Amino acid sequence: MSDPWQECMDYCVEVTKKAGQMIREALQEDIAVMQKSSPVDLVTETDQKVERLIIDSIKEKYPAHRFPFVSVSIGFTVKKEIEFGIVYSCIEDKMYTARKGKGAFCNGEPIKVSGQEDISQSLVLTEMNFHKDPGHFTTMLANVEKILTIPVHGIRSPGSAAVNMCLVACGSADAYYHMGIHCWDMAGGAALVTEAGGVIMDISGGPFDLMSRRLIVASSRAIARRVAKEITEFPVGRDDTDG
Amino acid sequence: MSDPWQECMDYCVEVTKKAGQMIREALQEDIAVMQKSSPVDLVTETDQKVERLIIDSIKEKYPAHRFPFVSVSIGFTVKKEIEFGIVYSCIEDKMYTARKGKGAFCNGEPIKVSGQEDISQSLVLTEMNFHKDPGHFTTMLANVEKILTIPVHGIRSPGSAAVNMCLVACGSADAYYHMGIHCWDMAGGAALVTEAGGVIMDISGGPFDLMSRRLIVASSRAIARRVAKEITEFPVGRDDTDG
Repeated sequence: MSDPWQECMDYCVEVTKKAGQMIREALQEDIAVMQKSSPVDLVTETDQKVERLIIDSIKEKYPAHRFPFVSVSIGFTVKKEIEFGIVYSCIEDKMYTARKGKGAFCNGEPIKVSGQEDISQSLVLTEMNFHKDPGHFTTMLANVEKILTIPVHGIRSPGSAAVNMCLVACGSADAYYHMGIHCWDMAGGAALVTEAGGVIMDISGGPFDLMSRRLIVASSRAIARRVAKEITEFPVGRDDTDG
Repeated sequence: MSDPWQECMDYCVEVTKKAGQMIREALQEDIAVMQKSSPVDLVTETDQKVERLIIDSIKEKYPAHRFPFVSVSIGFTVKKEIEFGIVYSCIEDKMYTARKGKGAFCNGEPIKVSGQEDISQSLVLTEMNFHKDPGHFTTMLANVEKILTIPVHGIRSPGSAAVNMCLVACGSADAYYHMGIHCWDMAGGAALVTEAGGVIMDISGGPFDLMSRRLIVASSRAIARRVAKEITEFPVGRDDTDG
């Protein structure tokens, strides 16, 4: 039975590994990552797309601190459906992979979400960034306060977004939410969470939209809905209309 | 030349390893860690002290999520001076060790702080917990807001306290501050930060006090002072007077 995406996924795993190695070496040597400047002749369209994703990802994350959760993330979508996702946590040397309908894995071992349904026992992940818009900034902090006040078991902010999703996928944490994230940060992790038995939805509690720049992922629908109920939205634009 | 504490430190590294293995196994098997209940006959006073520290540490941290930064931490003090510190990050399998005047190490390799002096380039770590006292809770969140508004490069909250200090010690992050921490969470990491060339001080900007339940650690004095300047204090009691 022919499997049109398996070869592509295998290829991406290798590319991701190389990109991860590049980041790791750069961090070790404390020098800047150089974008390759020489033109490449024979590259397929897929290669170019993947490469741009990787370069975007590296540019987004680099210059980075020597923080353990630097990652490379790839999500491959066909007709708006995510076919596979790969997240490589470079410093930890953890390769997370998920293929639609075939499960989620970390370094080849199957992973699954915690299955937690009780919000008070949940470890919730998010990111805290400075926003110049005081309205956004105040709402972001107020959301952290609301989640803590439920109360949850704890809130953590390890970053990166892709690794946060993998931490939910492998049961290390029970939920992750964010507004202002980009599609290239979500697509890889989204596949991981879904294939690991988790739930992904919009901040509003509605269906997840890859271009919406916002998401909740969780170990269960109950947890995701509870987080959605607490969160106040602020406008973050979309990846397919704002640039 | 006789070195009275080397043997003790070697012993603690082994004990820490065992405790770490216990946590790792418990997390893998998803069962509760059992405190050993059978009486032990021949234990030295040091052994008992170390054991209590480890048990406290495990009780404090367990039942834990399968979060990567679960750790065992030991700080050994003689006449209020920290002689050595050990932090074992169990899931990552990283053994951080520091001996007074002899440097800091991770899995045997020397580590040092980033040396960062520019707060705007700094990655700052803290913890965000729910406080029943609304004054404490509001001030804790206001402090996060102030630090983000400087602005810093970013704020992260990976936990645990001991691992946060090690992340500063090895240059992964540039500062960590907290109010409400206990001496057993600080002592091990304090040795690591100091021996890695970092700075440790009180939240007020004054000298560090192991029993004060508050601290700032940083890659440089400039960063530590800048953090101290932003932080509003709230009362957290002391470890040597409050029980």
